[in-house]
Parts: sequence; structure tokens; C-alpha cells
Amino acid sequence: MPASLRFLGIDPGLTATGWGVIGVEGSKLSHIANGTISSNAKRSLAERLVEIEAGLVQILETYAPDAAAVEQAFVARDAAAALKLGQARAIALLVTARAGIAVAEYAPNHVKKSVVGAGHADKNQIRLMVEMLLPGAKPGSEHAADALAIAIAHAHSGASNMRIAAALAGAAR
Amino acid sequence: MPASLRFLGIDPGLTATGWGVIGVEGSKLSHIANGTISSNAKRSLAERLVEIEAGLVQILETYAPDAAAVEQAFVARDAAAALKLGQARAIALLVTARAGIAVAEYAPNHVKKSVVGAGHADKNQIRLMVEMLLPGAKPGSEHAADALAIAIAHAHSGASNMRIAAALAGAAR
Repeated sequence: MPASLRFLGIDPGLTATGWGVIGVEGSKLSHIANGTISSNAKRSLAERLVEIEAGLVQILETYAPDAAAVEQAFVARDAAAALKLGQARAIALLVTARAGIAVAEYAPNHVKKSVVGAGHADKNQIRLMVEMLLPGAKPGSEHAADALAIAIAHAHSGASNMRIAAALAGAAR
Repeated sequence: MPASLRFLGIDPGLTATGWGVIGVEGSKLSHIANGTISSNAKRSLAERLVEIEAGLVQILETYAPDAAAVEQAFVARDAAAALKLGQARAIALLVTARAGIAVAEYAPNHVKKSVVGAGHADKNQIRLMVEMLLPGAKPGSEHAADALAIAIAHAHSGASNMRIAAALAGAAR
């Protein structure tokens, strides 16, 4: 029986950063946990980034994931929105990479295609498929559902499967 | 004689993040240090953000600034450029705020106006004024010169002067 790995998915956002942890055992997926890190809109941008960092550090400590994936910033509607998005995303990338966890990035359309089968799936379809692929998962927010979808997409990806194989080979040695 | 404070200016960039530390004693400014944190373009974005973080953490530990200022992202030419800029800037904001240092943000035009007297000053004019206002300063790069200019702008700003006064009042207690 292959060893079980934990994948962390992150849907970064300044107001709400969704996260989800799944178990990956060969092609078998399971739900471990999900949640949303909210930052206080009354605080400064810098303080909000510190809140997001602290939340993510706690998740890494609690769930010790083996790999992580972050939603790639889709090109936002304008430069100001892109800037905001980039800031929350930078914290997600920083925290995971600093912990020595390889972090992949997937475009939203890739995630949707991987989880729902169509690149233009809506939020509701994503949630339904996440709940179907991860029995028992009840994502606490849209962002948490997206984060679980990102983790699933990572488990489905060829690149991550190669990494799993390498990790398993390492564990078997 | 008023107590001396240290201001850190940061010009965030993924490829090169400039930094400069100045001494502020009432209206008297002095140069303390400046430099550039470069990230390795061959590494992943996540790893580069970790490099920038490590560099800034070391500067905070070495110079223990009392206040910091970061160049406010001007709206970049497109969303992709804004996203990149936002990521490096997020690290600068995170590291300073996490250290408990109040971090101000100034638009590039404000910095130029404050240092050179004109919002459309070019890089060369900024460097010359920085070297004039901070005798002995030889900025090691354009980014380091910009960072010193940001620290000077912060020293010139009314908001920071109020904070200085509060800090001095606190120190005198």
C-alpha cells in the first residue's frame, strides 16, 4: 500500500484566503481539513499580510503538508486589482517555500478543468465536485472549496504524480 | 539634543529590492547604510520571495530601524507587471509590520517631490539629491538610491514627524 501524502491547496485573497488539506494515497483522495483565513479590513495592508502569514504558518504546523499548490493569479480586471491579489499570493508562496515545501501554481481554468471537467465551471459546480471527490468534505466557504479544488488539481497533475512517486521511492528506501 | 531615530526606506522589486537606512535627529539627516537585495532569476517565484524576505530580515536585525517606508506601487503598465510588483512589495510590508515597525507608503511622485522638489524628477536627479541630503552616501544601485529617497521622504513627512515627536516623548519618559 502506498504511503499517504498530504497536499495543501491555497486560494489566496487579502480579505479571505481559503485553504484545504487533502490526503493522497495513489489515486485515492481524502478530505483532511479546510478553512478560511480572514484578515481585518480595518487594519493596514501590512498588518493584514501579517495576519495571513500567521494563519498559514499555523496550518503548516498543524497539517505538515508534503506539497502545496496555489491558484495562479489570473490576470485581474485591472492593475490595481492585480496588485492586491499579488500581495496575498506572495504571502502564500513565501510561507510554503520557506517551509521547504514545493509549491505548484495552477491557473483557475486548469483547476476547474481538472476538478469539474470544464474550464468554465461555476462556483457551485466546483463545490459539488469537491464534495463528491472528497467524501465528508463540507467546505466552510467558497474560498475553502476553491482551495480544496486546487489541492485536487495538484493530485491529478502529472507533475505532482511524479513527485509522489519520487517521495514514495524515497520513503520505501 | 533630540534622540536619534533610524528610518528604513525600501524600494521593492522582485529582481532587485533597494534598501537604505538613515539617521533622523530632529531635522538633521545622516546616512547609515544602503544596499540591494537581488533574487536569483533562475529560481521559482516562491523561492525568490523567500530570498527577499531573508535579506530584509537581516537588515532589520542589523540596523533595528524605528520606522519604515515603502514605495507605493504606482499603477503598473499592465496587470501582469502590477502582480509582480505587488508580490515583492508584500514581502517588504510583511517583514516590517511583523517586526512591529510602523510602515508608511508613499507614491513615487510624492517621494520625488519631497526629495528633489519636483514630482517628475529623473533617476539621476534623485541620486544627486540623496547624496546632497545625506553626506557620504554612495548608493550602490538605482534601487538603493530610491530607497534612501523614500526614507528621506518619510523623515520629511508631517505624519512621521508626529511619530518622531511621540517616540521622543516616550524616550524622555
